[in-house]
Amino acid sequence: MTDRMPAGFSRDQEGRLLIAGRTAEAWAAQAGDTPVFVYDRALLAARVAALRAAMPAGLQLHYAVKANPMPALVAHMAGLVDGLDVASAGELELALNAGMAAGAISFAGPGKRDRELEAAILAGATINIESAGELHRAGVIAGRAGRQARVALRINPPFALKGSGMRMGGAASPFGVDAAQAPEVLRAMAGRWFDFRGLHIFAGSQNLSETALLEAQRETVALVAELARHAPAPPPLVNLGGGFGVPYFPGDKALDLAMLGKGLADILDARPASLQASRFALELGRWLVAEAGVYLCRIIDRKTSGGESFLITDGGLHHQLAATGNFGTVIRRNYPLVNASRNGAEWEILSVVGCLCTPLDRLGDKIELAQSGVGDLIAIFMAGAYGRTASPQAFLGHPAPRELLV
Amino acid sequence: MTDRMPAGFSRDQEGRLLIAGRTAEAWAAQAGDTPVFVYDRALLAARVAALRAAMPAGLQLHYAVKANPMPALVAHMAGLVDGLDVASAGELELALNAGMAAGAISFAGPGKRDRELEAAILAGATINIESAGELHRAGVIAGRAGRQARVALRINPPFALKGSGMRMGGAASPFGVDAAQAPEVLRAMAGRWFDFRGLHIFAGSQNLSETALLEAQRETVALVAELARHAPAPPPLVNLGGGFGVPYFPGDKALDLAMLGKGLADILDARPASLQASRFALELGRWLVAEAGVYLCRIIDRKTSGGESFLITDGGLHHQLAATGNFGTVIRRNYPLVNASRNGAEWEILSVVGCLCTPLDRLGDKIELAQSGVGDLIAIFMAGAYGRTASPQAFLGHPAPRELLV
Repeated sequence: MTDRMPAGFSRDQEGRLLIAGRTAEAWAAQAGDTPVFVYDRALLAARVAALRAAMPAGLQLHYAVKANPMPALVAHMAGLVDGLDVASAGELELALNAGMAAGAISFAGPGKRDRELEAAILAGATINIESAGELHRAGVIAGRAGRQARVALRINPPFALKGSGMRMGGAASPFGVDAAQAPEVLRAMAGRWFDFRGLHIFAGSQNLSETALLEAQRETVALVAELARHAPAPPPLVNLGGGFGVPYFPGDKALDLAMLGKGLADILDARPASLQASRFALELGRWLVAEAGVYLCRIIDRKTSGGESFLITDGGLHHQLAATGNFGTVIRRNYPLVNASRNGAEWEILSVVGCLCTPLDRLGDKIELAQSGVGDLIAIFMAGAYGRTASPQAFLGHPAPRELLV
Repeated sequence: MTDRMPAGFSRDQEGRLLIAGRTAEAWAAQAGDTPVFVYDRALLAARVAALRAAMPAGLQLHYAVKANPMPALVAHMAGLVDGLDVASAGELELALNAGMAAGAISFAGPGKRDRELEAAILAGATINIESAGELHRAGVIAGRAGRQARVALRINPPFALKGSGMRMGGAASPFGVDAAQAPEVLRAMAGRWFDFRGLHIFAGSQNLSETALLEAQRETVALVAELARHAPAPPPLVNLGGGFGVPYFPGDKALDLAMLGKGLADILDARPASLQASRFALELGRWLVAEAGVYLCRIIDRKTSGGESFLITDGGLHHQLAATGNFGTVIRRNYPLVNASRNGAEWEILSVVGCLCTPLDRLGDKIELAQSGVGDLIAIFMAGAYGRTASPQAFLGHPAPRELLV
C-alpha cells in the first residue's frame, strides 16, 4: 500500500508528511490552528517553469485568479506569469494590488455591472466583452470618463472542448457572443471610445485529453482568423483559453506537456497571415495551482457505526466543497487523502468526514489509510484550486480556515 | 399564466411584487444595492403560530439556527420558539446573543472541538452527545471547569425517514450513537459531571410525506422508550427531530399540519409509562423560515445565444447555491422565480443566470416569465433557508449580499 499523492510531496523517516521540507504538523503549529491550507511557492514556480519550457516561445501565460485568490498567492503568481484574468471588480483590485500591470489584466464574466466596467476602464484593464449590450455600456462609461475602454471580444464558440469537466462552448450559452453575431460586435469596436485588444475563446475546463485540447486550439485559431476580418485591427492578443485538467482521481493521467507544446507550436506556425502579428495566450487557473496546495484538518473523534469506521475531522465542505463531491460533480469520488501524521505498517478502510451536521460532509469515502486516531492530521491534496473561496465558508458558523503560502 | 409563488406574496395593481406590503423595488432601494435577501417577520410569526395551533399542547418548538443564522432573524425567532438548536460554538454565541436562555439551547454536530464543548458547558447549553468519545471529553472538561455538563444522547436510529431529501438514519453514520451502543453511553451519563437532559433522534430532512414523518415519529418514541431504561433518569426532553419539508418544485404539496398534529398527538397520548413525565420537542429549520424569504437580484444584461434567451443578473450561486441545483441535489429543478418589476401581459421562455463566470450559475432554466429587460428585478422565492451561509459567498470576489428582516 502506498499513498496516492501528487508529485512534490513525500514522507520523512517517521512517516510524517512533508510539505516544502517541513512536516504538516509544523505548518499546522505555525498557523496556530487547523484546518489550514498550505500552498507551496516552489511547486507553483516549478509548474509555471515546466509549462514555459514545453510551450512555444512567445506564448503568454495568464493566471485566472478565480482558482485561488489568496492575496499572497496572487502576488507570487503575478511575478511568474504574463497576465492575470479576473472575474469581478474585487478580483481586479486584487490583481492590481498584486502588482500586475493593468494592461496585462483581462476581465471576463457575463454579468459585469456598470461600476465594474468603470473600474476596469479607469484602471486600464482589458474588458472581455460578452454581449453587444455590454459593449454599448462600456462605450457610454468610457465616453463619460473621457478615457478609451480596452476591449477584447469573448466568443461563444460553435464547437466544444470534448470530454471537459465543464463544457463552455458548442451550445446556447450566457458566455460571450455567438460566432454568428461576432462580426457585428467586432465592427462596433472601431468606435472612438474603444481600444481593440483582441479575442478570447474559452471552450471548456478540467480536460485531460491532449488530443481534445489541441483540437479545440486548432478550431479556436481557425475561428479567430475568420472573425478577425471584421475587427478594427489585427488582434494584438488571442486568448486561447485553457481547459487543462489535473488528475484528481485514480486512473486520471496528468497531461503530457511536451505533446501539448509541440501540437500548439504546429498550430501557431501554420496560422494564416491575418494572425501573423498577433500574440497568443493560455489562460490557466486550476492547472497552475491545484496540485501545489494541501488542506490539513485534524481528527476530533473516531467512531464505528453499522460496521463502518469514521474519522471525524475539524475540516469539511465549508472549506472543501468540491472534495465532498458537491460542486459541479454528479458522482462523488475521493480526492487523494492521507494520514499526514503517520504512515503505519497497518492499513484500514476508513471514512473521513467533516465536522458539519450534514451527510453531505464526507471528505473520504471508505478509503485505505494508515491506522488513524484522534489528534492525527489528515491531508487532502489537490487543494490549491477552488477550495476556500469555492466553498460555503459561513455554513454552520465555524471559523475561517487558515492559509499559508510557504 | 400565473406566478408560482408561496403564500404571503402578491402583486400590486401595476404588477409589481409586494413583500410585507411594499414593493420589491422599495426594499432594494432601502438595502442600497442588489442582490438582497428580504425576510418577512410576519410570515415567520404566522408560520410558528400555525404550527403551534396544529400541534399537541405542550409540544416544544425549536429553531435550528443553521437554516438561517442572520442575527436579527435569530433574535426574532428566539421570541417565538421554545428553544434554539446550534451546530457550532459560533452558532451558540449567536443564540445566546439573541437572548435565548442557555438551558433552552442544544448543540449538535459530529465534530465538536474541546473548546466548543467547553463553551457549551460554561454557558449551560445542552450538548447532544454523538459518541462515547465525545461524552468522555465533555466529562473531562466539565470536571476541570468544576461545572456539570448538560448532556443529551443523539441516537443514530436503525430506521430512516422514508423519502427524505436527506436520510440521516437507517445506515452507518457519523451522526449520533448507534442504538445498539446507546445503552452503554446512557449508563455513562450517570457520572457526576453530567446532568442528563434527554434524547435526540434525527431521521431525515426535507420530507413532504405526512405518513413517513408520523411513522418516523412513532418509531422514534418507541426507540426512545426502550432506550430510556438505560438512562440515569427519565428523559426530561425528547427531541423528535424535524424533517418537515417545504414545496420547492411544481407538484410538491405543502405538508398538512392538521394531519401531522393529530397523528403526533395520538403517538404521544399512547406513549409508555416510562415517558409520561417527558416533554417532547420538534426541531425545525428549513420549514420555519424557507418560505418567508425572497432573494432579489437585478437584470444586468439580456442576450440571445443559440436561439435561447438569457437574462443575466447580479445574483448567483455565490448567494443561492441550492437554487442552482448544486448543493445536495442530483437533478436541477427551478425554484419559484418571477419578474418582480412587472407582470406583463406577454410571457416568454427565458433562462436566468447569475453573474459568475461558470456554467453552474443557472438560477432559472427555460422558465416562463413576464417580458423582462435590463433593470428589472428578479425574485427567487424559498430563499429564507440555506441561502447566504450555505453558498460560496467569496467565490469570484463579489460583494456580500444585503439582508433585510422586515
